[in-house]
Amino acid sequence: MKNKAITSRDVDFAKWYTDIVRAAHLASYSNVKGCIVIEPNGYAIWERMQQTLDKMFKETGHKNICMPMLIPENLMKKESDLINGFAPEVAWVTQGGDKKLEERMCIRPTSETLFSDYYSTLVSSYRDLPIKYNQWCNVLRWEKETRPFLRSREFLWQEGHTIHETKEEAENETKMMLEIYKKFFEEYLAIPVITGKKTEKEKFAGAEYTLTIEALMYNGVSLQSATSHYFGQKFSKAYDIKFSNRNNEQEYAYQTSWGSSTRMIGGLIMVHSDDNGLVLPPKIAPNQVAIIPIGNSELVKVKVEEIYNELNNAGITSYVDNSEKSPGFKFAEAEVNGIPVRIEIGERDLNENKITFVRRDTREKIVESLNIDVSKYVNELLSKIQNNLYNNALKRREDLTYECHNLEDVEKIMNTKPGFIKAMWCGSEECELKMKEIKGTKSRCILENHKHIDDKCIVCGKEAKHLVVWGIQY
Amino acid sequence: MKNKAITSRDVDFAKWYTDIVRAAHLASYSNVKGCIVIEPNGYAIWERMQQTLDKMFKETGHKNICMPMLIPENLMKKESDLINGFAPEVAWVTQGGDKKLEERMCIRPTSETLFSDYYSTLVSSYRDLPIKYNQWCNVLRWEKETRPFLRSREFLWQEGHTIHETKEEAENETKMMLEIYKKFFEEYLAIPVITGKKTEKEKFAGAEYTLTIEALMYNGVSLQSATSHYFGQKFSKAYDIKFSNRNNEQEYAYQTSWGSSTRMIGGLIMVHSDDNGLVLPPKIAPNQVAIIPIGNSELVKVKVEEIYNELNNAGITSYVDNSEKSPGFKFAEAEVNGIPVRIEIGERDLNENKITFVRRDTREKIVESLNIDVSKYVNELLSKIQNNLYNNALKRREDLTYECHNLEDVEKIMNTKPGFIKAMWCGSEECELKMKEIKGTKSRCILENHKHIDDKCIVCGKEAKHLVVWGIQY
Repeated sequence: MKNKAITSRDVDFAKWYTDIVRAAHLASYSNVKGCIVIEPNGYAIWERMQQTLDKMFKETGHKNICMPMLIPENLMKKESDLINGFAPEVAWVTQGGDKKLEERMCIRPTSETLFSDYYSTLVSSYRDLPIKYNQWCNVLRWEKETRPFLRSREFLWQEGHTIHETKEEAENETKMMLEIYKKFFEEYLAIPVITGKKTEKEKFAGAEYTLTIEALMYNGVSLQSATSHYFGQKFSKAYDIKFSNRNNEQEYAYQTSWGSSTRMIGGLIMVHSDDNGLVLPPKIAPNQVAIIPIGNSELVKVKVEEIYNELNNAGITSYVDNSEKSPGFKFAEAEVNGIPVRIEIGERDLNENKITFVRRDTREKIVESLNIDVSKYVNELLSKIQNNLYNNALKRREDLTYECHNLEDVEKIMNTKPGFIKAMWCGSEECELKMKEIKGTKSRCILENHKHIDDKCIVCGKEAKHLVVWGIQY
Repeated sequence: MKNKAITSRDVDFAKWYTDIVRAAHLASYSNVKGCIVIEPNGYAIWERMQQTLDKMFKETGHKNICMPMLIPENLMKKESDLINGFAPEVAWVTQGGDKKLEERMCIRPTSETLFSDYYSTLVSSYRDLPIKYNQWCNVLRWEKETRPFLRSREFLWQEGHTIHETKEEAENETKMMLEIYKKFFEEYLAIPVITGKKTEKEKFAGAEYTLTIEALMYNGVSLQSATSHYFGQKFSKAYDIKFSNRNNEQEYAYQTSWGSSTRMIGGLIMVHSDDNGLVLPPKIAPNQVAIIPIGNSELVKVKVEEIYNELNNAGITSYVDNSEKSPGFKFAEAEVNGIPVRIEIGERDLNENKITFVRRDTREKIVESLNIDVSKYVNELLSKIQNNLYNNALKRREDLTYECHNLEDVEKIMNTKPGFIKAMWCGSEECELKMKEIKGTKSRCILENHKHIDDKCIVCGKEAKHLVVWGIQY
């Protein structure tokens, strides 16, 4: 394995991104157009994400299930907004074995239809509610331009689907799940996010409204990172999810869905990584520490084993690199793979009673006495790294967040140092489309409960209704 | 929710099976033909299976990855045995969005092609080997007749794919994985299995040979429960997986694959469950204990909470059923759902310093003093249940395993009390087909390192080569 050169992120961000994906062995291109192979280093990150989110979902009363991956066309068509939104980007199965199918089926681009159809068979009384299910699965959208993790035809995700007795309960669920995503991003991925509501134009096909978390990447481009939708009774009417309520009347259930995907791995890369490779926040890193012995001395071997056991007993994930490569090569590999802390131990260090720690985030080398409590020390170091990554990302976002009152400023910013633009909006799609003419600037979300910064819409000058965050999107 | 009547397994085994699947809420039929919805109770079992096997795979040096679900037709066709074996049962995607595809793609029925294609890009030297990857995913086979978990168009599974430097190493991998499956079945699922090699006729399309574990169900029908294949260089030649060996010569890699699926849930049901519902071995049960309070007294509530905490702290998974249903209904529900131990506590019990345990396997009710160490007691009880289930299954299999020396005996057995038939075989497909005429009796596997029980083939009377286990299969 060779540590390939990585393009500088300040020179060519797009090239840098794919260089990181390849150099850190996160994914490789496959011979299936628009689809990637998620390699062990990438998949291990996904497993950590799954474990963490899954626990949060279960603690809030959700259960996992598994729906079919195929959706018969007629079932898909029952909700017209959904089929209109997704029709251009689904793959159709038209043949099973040797036979042409009587009805074609699409590979799920999302599973509202299947969940709704299933829920209609489950519910008869308010006593059956709420039902809060989630599934971890693959979905397929026939994208034309693809990029590893960010936009690929097939991707992995989780989609939660819940139905409730009342509007209020469903809306609370929608909000709660957004908060869970926010917590996960900020506490685990060390990525600060902005939360808000999508505009009508940008909301999910079929939703009454969509809540979103939006993150800012190193290059000032924003990433829609997870979404939570409130459907009201739209799907329950289309799919006949009725129950007898507490007044013994038939009522349609209130519904939500929410999802997050392997796209989060792309976000992780674009927020934290640098020109030396991947940088992983300790709380999501599959391996938090790389222990690298220098030389073949028996004493070193014993010490390395001792430290490995001590870290493992303290719940710190680590590995010892005992391969035949040179120490320098191993250092570089741990670095490009984003391992948060590297421990180096050689015979000379032992003689001098020393141990060396290298932080991946700052690349700082710290020499300590071997008398310290190593696991306690590493735990503190991991905490520092986690906080430092979050603070760096937050500072960058703050530096790249601008309040604008006219389109000239927006244009100037988007042409030089793009980021989040805060600006007032009248609520018309026309003004959204005008904004889009400036380098594709789109509304990211409507900020609720924020003080308005102007009375007038930044585009048309008419009365403003909402404070909106705008940005260029992935 | 209503505990539906369950047909007796001695009256109509097939009906009993689907009754259990529905009554224990493991799966339901979907509106996608031949596909099921795996419901929370079923999916939680799958999650336990995944966690346990995944740990065993990782401990033996395997890493998880994720391959695309679509396979372009040309890629699939490179290995002719494979495409011939699977062509009648794949689903074809012919349209993406609005466009007809230039090359159709099938939804993976298995992923040898994709792994081989990927491996050909990874390997150049013996130093790159072995590569031992696994993936957890969904696959699709266009089956005509389907049954929940046992045979459904889409199912969940894991497929391991490894490549090696030498034949010997690859063959050892093939054997090791079979042993892992055997261990998992016997120690966790409490299902005794027979291990052996498939005949040429029954082996996996494209394999040099297939090792299998075979289990016997309550009704004497056998279930192929997991398989491990040795491919030799067959795929590596078709997909050009070459490396320079230690002699600096180009050589084709040696390959294996091995898989197990949600079919294991079907096996669990058919080995252990009874006319009162599902029975789960404690080591695979998502919830090992159901704690059911009787009455609403505050004292009971406090005691129930105390026991719940004690069990949880001891690593025993349990839940308290605080729903508004009657105690009798809760008992029935815990029973039909297969919870290994039920704890009942009412005010009268507390006054008499008593606690009641009910074993799901024997349905035995045990009243104990409240002075006992509850978590220790439950742990011992769970152990007893696990062993009892295994021993019952083993005894049944032994009772239903017959040595036969002529076809009349086979016919008599298969018409009255079917099971595993041990009989000698000459090695010809013709004799296998003759055997199949007896109620579909097929070779399950060749027993290796077993003493031969006869010199002659049970069918043709010619010289026997192998001792074979025969049975009727799912």
